[in-house]
Amino acid sequence: MIILGIDPGFAITGYGIVKYEGNKFSAIDYGAITTASTMDLPKRLLHLHDSLEKLIHEYKPDAIAIEELFFNKNIKTALTVGHGRGVAVLTAAKSGVEVFEYTPLQVKQSVVGYGRAEKVQVQQMVKIILNLPEIPKPDDVADALAIAICHGHSYKMSGLFKTT
Amino acid sequence: MIILGIDPGFAITGYGIVKYEGNKFSAIDYGAITTASTMDLPKRLLHLHDSLEKLIHEYKPDAIAIEELFFNKNIKTALTVGHGRGVAVLTAAKSGVEVFEYTPLQVKQSVVGYGRAEKVQVQQMVKIILNLPEIPKPDDVADALAIAICHGHSYKMSGLFKTT
Repeated sequence: MIILGIDPGFAITGYGIVKYEGNKFSAIDYGAITTASTMDLPKRLLHLHDSLEKLIHEYKPDAIAIEELFFNKNIKTALTVGHGRGVAVLTAAKSGVEVFEYTPLQVKQSVVGYGRAEKVQVQQMVKIILNLPEIPKPDDVADALAIAICHGHSYKMSGLFKTT
Repeated sequence: MIILGIDPGFAITGYGIVKYEGNKFSAIDYGAITTASTMDLPKRLLHLHDSLEKLIHEYKPDAIAIEELFFNKNIKTALTVGHGRGVAVLTAAKSGVEVFEYTPLQVKQSVVGYGRAEKVQVQQMVKIILNLPEIPKPDDVADALAIAICHGHSYKMSGLFKTT
């Protein structure tokens, strides 16, 4: 199965396209969609939407996994990032592909086996699981790949996904 | 000119379609797009997107005016409402119609002539300006109409809009 993992944001949205077959993960593509702060809000959201739509058309994922966000920062940041995440979830839903949401705790648990793992531990595991030459940068990209891996594990455990 | 005013939200999004011609405003349509809390997030955002897209196709507005949001509530609310507003702005941008944003202060100033006006004063003025039999309910609908009126005033004052 092909999984598109998304680490949603506003200025930066990480994405990772991962193939999960025969109990093995491999990375097909990954990167970050960025929007310049010089662009106005409608244009930034449209760019994010179009870029995600293009990825979905190109890789035809079987599932889209998006991280849930929690904030202890300020209200304005939450509102802004909410705009980006709303557009990401909408774009996923519009594509007709099933959308799954995972908390940071679930992602850490799934990738490292420990819910309170450090960010760098998650990144190291992503590198190892996907056999990458180095940890993808920025952090949002590694996070997106981690979310895709989390969905693969979760889907397998749900018993719906039969490996052969 | 036809103006679509939007009071963005998540559970409730108010909309108002207003015609501004020869210095006179009239209401063409108004109401609220609601999403049930029993629906999951992707479905709720998709419903909001589809409903707004339908309105834009039907009424072909010349401009779309969306209220900016400010919060002194909690972070979770800001994040959630951000999802809804993000989808509203994206849907407007995707339609190719020009999008304008106004702060609550600008809307009050424009409709009542006084930036610190009470909510009920704004609603009364909306009723009078649009010659409505009563104040539209819920508040989000009256607010959306107020935003559309605000854009009409602002556009006229910008000198771009010539009334005959």
